[in-house]
Amino acid sequence: MLKMENMILKEGKVLPGGILKVGSFLNQQINTVLMKSAGEEIERLFCATEVNKVLTIEASGIALAVAAGMQLSVPVVFAKKHKTSNVDGNVYSTKVHSHTHGVDYDVVVSKDYIGKDDKVLIVDDFLAHGKAMQGLIDIAGQAGADVAGIVVAVEKCFQGGGDALRDKGLRVEALAAIESMEPNKIVFR
Amino acid sequence: MLKMENMILKEGKVLPGGILKVGSFLNQQINTVLMKSAGEEIERLFCATEVNKVLTIEASGIALAVAAGMQLSVPVVFAKKHKTSNVDGNVYSTKVHSHTHGVDYDVVVSKDYIGKDDKVLIVDDFLAHGKAMQGLIDIAGQAGADVAGIVVAVEKCFQGGGDALRDKGLRVEALAAIESMEPNKIVFR
Repeated sequence: MLKMENMILKEGKVLPGGILKVGSFLNQQINTVLMKSAGEEIERLFCATEVNKVLTIEASGIALAVAAGMQLSVPVVFAKKHKTSNVDGNVYSTKVHSHTHGVDYDVVVSKDYIGKDDKVLIVDDFLAHGKAMQGLIDIAGQAGADVAGIVVAVEKCFQGGGDALRDKGLRVEALAAIESMEPNKIVFR
Repeated sequence: MLKMENMILKEGKVLPGGILKVGSFLNQQINTVLMKSAGEEIERLFCATEVNKVLTIEASGIALAVAAGMQLSVPVVFAKKHKTSNVDGNVYSTKVHSHTHGVDYDVVVSKDYIGKDDKVLIVDDFLAHGKAMQGLIDIAGQAGADVAGIVVAVEKCFQGGGDALRDKGLRVEALAAIESMEPNKIVFR
């Protein structure tokens, strides 16, 4: 998606350790005009798949997930992150390791909001090593739901998470797929 | 807003301790058709105010804030919650007490994303005692930004936070304002 790539080139900042800072338009500040276009693009990509629910993870996945859900006219369910194990019986949960923060946390979704009749589109802001994404796929699996596909705003291809999921036969779409990056030089796939 | 009130009557659950559970359409699962209507209503209420930014707090405020920001075509900034004080110098921060969880936490916004030229609309899902809202107003004040108004999906009027803010001269709008509630009986203002 050209608008996403152009925004990354204009406002993204490459930091040491393979980090791309996009806080001005995708994370802490959200460019809603861009999000609306992103939602339209996601609708174009997945409108033929009979998705009935969007699944994401708090907090920075929510904006793109809502943009997608609005265009597809389906509800959005977001998984919660817990650092402690205050998880009761009425949830699906799985452990995820965060490379960014160096900690494990529980990812939790109430059993009320995802089930075996659901066909979910998993949405997140970033796909890097793919740990959070694997957690969401695991949650969908526990619920007996189908995964129609995965879409992220930015895939950092060089960290391998996206291709590992494609190798498992999943459909993975990135609105911007970064093949390599260094300060002032970002190459898209 | 009639659609919000009707959804609360249809799917909301009143729990002991003044808690209204709206997880099926406003929190963990988000009804995006309702959110789109809510965004349109917020645009109608605030389009004359020259708001240039929506300010909210993670995680459950983000969906409504994005819906509002899309309609108003302005960016959304969300404050982060930290339980620990890992706050560096480039942020505005304030302490907030959570009645629901019985803990204090830091509310943090990067100085890059809010400043003295901003006229912000503060958006959240709930307004009860108003502690989180006071935190966001404090952040806007630290940044020198104007607060054009406050809008929430649900105000629990009986917990007093909304009227306390109105007494200070702030414009506070609720898409649904609950005067009193008990199981199977919710009275709107």
